[in-house]
Amino acid sequence: MSNRRLTTTSYALLSQLSLRPWSTYELARQSARYFRYVWPRAESAIYREVKQLAQAGLVESRKEFVGRRARTVYSISKAGLAELREWFDTPPSPIAMEFEGMLRLFVAPVATTEQVRAALEQVRADNLQMIDFGGEVKQEYLDGRGALQDQVYVRALAIDFFVSLMNTVDAWVERTLGEIATWDHLSVTERNERALEILAQVPVDTPAAPTPATPVVPESQRRSPRYPRG
Amino acid sequence: MSNRRLTTTSYALLSQLSLRPWSTYELARQSARYFRYVWPRAESAIYREVKQLAQAGLVESRKEFVGRRARTVYSISKAGLAELREWFDTPPSPIAMEFEGMLRLFVAPVATTEQVRAALEQVRADNLQMIDFGGEVKQEYLDGRGALQDQVYVRALAIDFFVSLMNTVDAWVERTLGEIATWDHLSVTERNERALEILAQVPVDTPAAPTPATPVVPESQRRSPRYPRG
Repeated sequence: MSNRRLTTTSYALLSQLSLRPWSTYELARQSARYFRYVWPRAESAIYREVKQLAQAGLVESRKEFVGRRARTVYSISKAGLAELREWFDTPPSPIAMEFEGMLRLFVAPVATTEQVRAALEQVRADNLQMIDFGGEVKQEYLDGRGALQDQVYVRALAIDFFVSLMNTVDAWVERTLGEIATWDHLSVTERNERALEILAQVPVDTPAAPTPATPVVPESQRRSPRYPRG
Repeated sequence: MSNRRLTTTSYALLSQLSLRPWSTYELARQSARYFRYVWPRAESAIYREVKQLAQAGLVESRKEFVGRRARTVYSISKAGLAELREWFDTPPSPIAMEFEGMLRLFVAPVATTEQVRAALEQVRADNLQMIDFGGEVKQEYLDGRGALQDQVYVRALAIDFFVSLMNTVDAWVERTLGEIATWDHLSVTERNERALEILAQVPVDTPAAPTPATPVVPESQRRSPRYPRG
């Protein structure tokens, strides 16, 4: 095996290839379908990675013909599977999120209310499209035509997660747009008073004992992708 | 203004600096607290970016002395604010997530059940730490000692989101660990039968009309960060 350090992107690809072989075209499709919500990387990065993994002997590629059209099909090698199995015993990194819509909410004090509203309407529209997509994927597996239908016992749990996430986003955008609708009639001081009432209702326990002046992010959130090598 | 193309990371930093000035130390702290869950980038990338923005004249830096210790304080320039305001009118990119724990669930067919369970226990533990942190931040703002206390009308809505998200993750991990506990007693066929029942209960509407053989991710999810320049 090469000395090149494997990244989570490497493992994400090896994982995908450990479940069944995929053609280049199918990998591209999968990159939009799954990678984006699990380990978002540019399609170009995924192609580059699969080629490097092939060079390192962790992935095997073979040419297949569908009629007269050639296509490359990738599968995991024995060495790749061994690498992957080592990774299974390392702790996964914590969830991280790219949420540009939230950045747009953060700048509310310097943006117009209309700009913030428009950004959140966009978040809602994108999310509703994803909810529709979630419904289609649910139906796909219920119909028995999923790409990993023989692994529906795993996929159902993932679909459950993404639908729960999207429903959470939808409910939040709804109530947030409702709040923003009140801004036109309220001074910042009045908004802040109202916000303290909202905050008091946020469903999380507050600490029993006094906390540091500025709460510090848990150490786990700084855990970086790690793969101990001898 | 420079010709350098601004990225979402640039705008994330300009956004932060538009809300108030921050010292280098405070920015580092903020990068762990907010950036990670909104626009996760390495601390080093954030430092590099703020320096480049200063070179481009979008950010101003000044040295301050706290006793004998010097510190650099960054604030947004007039040109920076103008750039930021242009950005406000562009649509935000859709939510994307890094969720390595889900990658570990995906590989259940080639991992041991114990490995999958351990990975999800880690997701749960990390998430519970974040829930505690959420409670501390809630208390911080209720106590009137938040870093952006005068903008609690915005921050309360963000805290609401992150707590909702973490509660959603927690509930999902709980039921998923419950499912995994059944795997030891079930064949893959039996697990798959059970999964179809779970799937039928996932709270999302399925399409009324037949859908394509393989549902296609909505176009919006491929929207790339864009910033039209003349």
